[in-house]
Order: sequence, then C-alpha cells, then structure tokens
Amino acid sequence: MIEKNKPETMVEKQYFTISDTALVLESGEKLKDVTIAYETFGELSKVKDNAVLITHAFSGDSHVAGYYPDEPEDAKPGWWDFMVGPGKGIDTDKYFVICSNILGSCNGSTGPSSINPATGKPYGLDFPMVTIGDMVEAQKKLIDYLGITRLLAVIGGSVGGMQVLEWCLRFPQMLKAAVPVATTMRHSALAIAFNEVARQSIMADPNWNHGDYYQGGKPNLGLAIARMIGHVTYLSDEAMRRKFGRRLQGKDSFSFGFDADFQVESYLRYQGNKFVQRFDANSLLYITRAADYFDITNRKNSVFMTDDQESRNRIKFLVVSFSSDWLYPTYQARELVKTLKRTGQSVSFCEIEADCGHDAFLIPNQRFIDLIKGFLDGIS
Amino acid sequence: MIEKNKPETMVEKQYFTISDTALVLESGEKLKDVTIAYETFGELSKVKDNAVLITHAFSGDSHVAGYYPDEPEDAKPGWWDFMVGPGKGIDTDKYFVICSNILGSCNGSTGPSSINPATGKPYGLDFPMVTIGDMVEAQKKLIDYLGITRLLAVIGGSVGGMQVLEWCLRFPQMLKAAVPVATTMRHSALAIAFNEVARQSIMADPNWNHGDYYQGGKPNLGLAIARMIGHVTYLSDEAMRRKFGRRLQGKDSFSFGFDADFQVESYLRYQGNKFVQRFDANSLLYITRAADYFDITNRKNSVFMTDDQESRNRIKFLVVSFSSDWLYPTYQARELVKTLKRTGQSVSFCEIEADCGHDAFLIPNQRFIDLIKGFLDGIS
Repeated sequence: MIEKNKPETMVEKQYFTISDTALVLESGEKLKDVTIAYETFGELSKVKDNAVLITHAFSGDSHVAGYYPDEPEDAKPGWWDFMVGPGKGIDTDKYFVICSNILGSCNGSTGPSSINPATGKPYGLDFPMVTIGDMVEAQKKLIDYLGITRLLAVIGGSVGGMQVLEWCLRFPQMLKAAVPVATTMRHSALAIAFNEVARQSIMADPNWNHGDYYQGGKPNLGLAIARMIGHVTYLSDEAMRRKFGRRLQGKDSFSFGFDADFQVESYLRYQGNKFVQRFDANSLLYITRAADYFDITNRKNSVFMTDDQESRNRIKFLVVSFSSDWLYPTYQARELVKTLKRTGQSVSFCEIEADCGHDAFLIPNQRFIDLIKGFLDGIS
Repeated sequence: MIEKNKPETMVEKQYFTISDTALVLESGEKLKDVTIAYETFGELSKVKDNAVLITHAFSGDSHVAGYYPDEPEDAKPGWWDFMVGPGKGIDTDKYFVICSNILGSCNGSTGPSSINPATGKPYGLDFPMVTIGDMVEAQKKLIDYLGITRLLAVIGGSVGGMQVLEWCLRFPQMLKAAVPVATTMRHSALAIAFNEVARQSIMADPNWNHGDYYQGGKPNLGLAIARMIGHVTYLSDEAMRRKFGRRLQGKDSFSFGFDADFQVESYLRYQGNKFVQRFDANSLLYITRAADYFDITNRKNSVFMTDDQESRNRIKFLVVSFSSDWLYPTYQARELVKTLKRTGQSVSFCEIEADCGHDAFLIPNQRFIDLIKGFLDGIS
C-alpha cells in the first residue's frame, strides 16, 4: 500500500489592513482601508535579515507555494511551488518568504470588486487607477508592518518583475538584492496592443455594464476571450507546435463547422472558461492598465540614473530572460542590464534557453531553479 | 494651377455565375448558383498567353488596383495598386491581370451573407464550409469562362499564397509559374490560435445570434475586436515600436482611465471600427476556418510529392517571405522551398528584409516590386 505523500508546506492566507492612513496613489487619488492578502513561508530570523519578497504576475496571487489546510486531496499547490519550499530554489528552510496579492487584484487584496466603504457596494469603475508603483507602496506598508527594515531580495516575473524594479527605484535602501525575471523597463507597443484588445473584449460584453456587474450576470464571455488572448502571448510558436501542432481534438477529421476541431482551440477555450471562475474582469482591466503605464526609462532622480557614489552598488541584481519569450523579449532584458551597468550597479544576467515562451518562468526548469538558488546563496 | 492627375487605371467589377453545375465542395456539400466577382486589367493577348491571376488575402477583394469610375476624388485605389498597373511590378501594359473575390467572402462573390436560393434569405450559418481548395475550384471555373487554358502565373500573399499552392496541386498543367508570398504550407498552431480567438470574439457578441443577424443589429463589437487581433498579428514588434512606441494620443499625460491613451490603442480601435463597415462577420468565420484547415504537407498524389518525370519542372516557382513576418515566418517559407526542391521543381526563393511584419507584402517596397517584375520578365 502506497502512502500518500503529505504536502510539504501548509500555509494560511493572512490579511493586513492599512488603517492608519489612506494610500496616496500616483494619480493623486486616495484609497482608504486598503487590505493586502499575504502568505508567509519559513521563519524570520532573529535579526530579520532573511526575508525574501516574491511579487506575482498579473493574474497571480499570494499563494506562491504549498497547500491550504482544508483543500481537497487533488488540490494544486501554489503557483511557484517548484521554486519555493524546503530545499528548493528559494529555500524556505533558510529564508522567510513573503508573497502578497497586488493592489487592484481580486484574491484578497483591495481591488475593484472590493466593497467601497463610501457606498457599501463594490467599487467597480469607481476604483481609482492604480500603478505598479502604487502596488509597491502597499507592499512596503506590509513589510513595515512585519517589522522588516531590509529585504534580502525581492524576486518576481512579468508584472512581478516590474514591481521588483519599482522597489529598486522607490526603496533601494531596503533591498540587498533584486531579481527581475521575464520583464521589461517599459511596456512595448506590442504588449500594450494585446492588453488593449483584451480590455476591449471585456468592455464589449454587455454583461460588463460599465464595470457594474457584481449584482448580476458577469462578463464571462468577454473575460474568457481576454484570457485566450493572454494565453497566446504567454506561449511561443515553438511551444505551440510541440504542444498542439495541428492535432485534432478527439476526432479523426474536420467537422466543417465552428466546433473546436484542433487541440489548440480546445485548450484555449478551456483556459478561458477556467479563468472566469477565479478572476474578476475589472481587475484584469486595472492590472493590464497598470502594466501599460509602466515605464521607468524616463524616471527622474532614480537610482538607475544617479551619479551619486553612495547609491551605487547598493543592490545586487540578477536579471533573467527566456529565449522564446516574445512578450518581454531578451533584447528588453539586455536594455535593462545595460542601464543598470551604466549606472554602476552590480548585475548578473542570464538568458535561459526555453521554448515555452513567456510562461517559461512558471514552468519547472532545473537551470532556472539552480540559478536562483546560487544567486541567493551568494548574497545571504 | 496644378492639374489633378487622372487616375491611371479605371476598372469595373464584373460578375460570373456558375450556372451550369453546382460546385461540389471538399466537405461533400454542393453549392448552387455560385457568383464570383472579378476585375481585369490590361488586354488578353490573341494567343491568350499573358494572363496573370492574383489571389487575395483573407479580407481582400477583387479590387486589386486602380479606381472605380464613379468614386469620390479622395477614394483610395485597389489594395495592390503599387504592384499592379501600367509599368508596375505586374505590368498591365504586358499582362492581362485577373483578380476575383474569394468564395465565402462578402465583396461580390457568394458567401454567408448571400441569398440562399433555397430560402430566399441570407445563408448565415447554413452556408457550407468552404476550403482554400473550394475557392480555387471556383476561380478555375472563372478562368475557363474567360477562355484561358493556361495562366502565365498565379500570384498571391497570405491566404492568397495558400490559393497559389492549391492551384499548383489541383491544376498544375494550367500554370507556367507560381508566386506564393508570405504564406505557409500549413496553418500553425499559433495562427490557428489567433483565428480562434477572433472567431470567439464574434460568436460572443449577442448580436451575432448564431450567424442570423442580417435583419437586425450586426455583431460589430465582436467583429471589431476580431480585426484588432488580426492587426496585431499583421504588424511586428519592430514596426509597432517605430510606428507607435509609447506615444500618447493627443494628450500629455495618462488619463488614469480606460480611454485610448496610447496611439497604438487609438490605431487599433480605428482599424476595428473601419473594418465593420466593409466586412461581414460570418465571412470572417468562414475564411479563417478555411485558412486553419489548410495543410498541403500530407496531400496524397500531389505534384509536390510525385516522382513522375512529366510533372517535374512544370511550374516555375518564386517563393517570397519577409524577415519580420511572425504569422508565416521565413522558416515556413524555407520548408516550402525544401519540399519544392525535393520534388525537382524549379524554385527561386527570396526573403525580403522588412520590419513591418506580415503586412509587408501590402506595403510599397521597391525590392519586392523589382523581384516580381524580374521574375515575370524571365518567364514571359
């Protein structure tokens, strides 16, 4: 009789509310009673020098690894379970790992689906626009609340990588190291274009109702299409050829109709329909907008641009890109590396060969795991 | 006083109806009273040896060049006017050029928006599925009707290039030369994926009404989004950076809302809205499906696969790809060239450096014009 392996890491979602003050956003608007959902893994050392903050991508959440206590037996672990845990790339036997749901999302942190204290109803489009910088300001409040004055590292991919860069610009004195993965210094026209089409597909759904749908039918068709668009951009030509090719879905010949004949169609429909069960359409609008607004190349007085000797070499950088990522291609990572080097930062760079496109940072890869592990060993 | 230049080429749309017989489709269904809209340019020689058939891309039409007689002064010429006309790449002083609207489309040829003779109402989804091969069978009837037994060349890009390849497989004895441009031997999973998302965006529009919308409101929102998706795939990362970058649309700063802040958003919305005025949503469904079904790599008894000496070197090929086309990338053109060479065909290949993506074949380019001109000079 084979004994079922006990899940390695059990974790609970926790909540922190910024109650002492309103968060002043980049737009100038103020947001009161902001709640941040977060999870922690491992133990904070007595001198509080082993904390690693992980920042998640657009549709991620605080559940970076492990299992919740009351989940069914077939539950999947957190989204970066291959990287985070005892003995793993980000070793929770050594490091105190924190991951929080971003501001504007819908997995426990305040976002457009949260109750607006001024009206007692969900915000909808009354939710103010938030930027990547605003997300980081909220994370900073959480780190303060946890009593941590300096993070060993902040690590994240995609939109999480943008947060890493904002941390470096806003709170360089709080960071020993930073690992921006599969990300960019500024959202390209191509990336904005895909986000815009995704937003339009939600806003074209009559159920969207200008964002006011929390009492009625949800814009699930529009949200599913937005997700399908996203999924195409997360993969790559090579990955799709390998994964699907032109294989048919459970049939020998074409239907000569509009059913899902090809496996790739079936896959996209499945991903779209699965997504609507866990994500809020308005959150997609807000977070893609935050990504589109992201551009640190023209930021004044940034640590990246300074000639101030003091601010140099303050943060150790590891920049990671993936060879088949066409959403944030390697040339964009190289631009970041060049900028960091030009301002005298300590920077390592690795382009990992992987044919799975932008999604590569979410797919188990020993080279990637070893790279992160080695980097953290070197700085801790 | 500057005299307005008179348009070089005036042309009228003509119609041919296959009335003697029903068209038997690849699906096995039969289609009666098929009408094909077409335009011709130049003069057919007495020995009828100077006819060039141009096959159009997914959203194209028979209006390949020139102007219609009664158009307003600011009317745009046909879609390949830089290539087709007196003294141009496809010189209408030398060649008799034919271009017909594809079966399934909505610009004069029979398609889902045409009247079903059995019901007296538009077909909608009762229109049978048509393939690239079916489009070519209808074109063949037109060429027969025009009394042409052999074409000097068949030339087309994208879905038009697929038609070129079908011509080579179905009627090799009728062709002296073939020029497949920016195309592929089979639709990739990536290309299918984008088409599927475009179809889903139409079918999610409540106005679509299972294809039965010709008496009511049209699925314009869904069709506009489908077109936006298409436009992103027709461009390239480089082209979008050059054309739009992160420039804002008529404003100095972000709106912190969901208006079109960026030029690229404004461009896509404009393209989407313009398209709904000229294209039928059901035609998009049918033609994208035909493209998805296209795969000549496993075709039995094809001229590409034969060892028969007679069929070898029958057609002179010029294969053209564009360096930044990521919808039908150069590696797919090379696969075609390899296949043609392996079966002993006469084939020239040129990858043209152009940063404008798949759209490159529709954008004036002297190198491309000279290439086509030189090739036609060499065979005529």
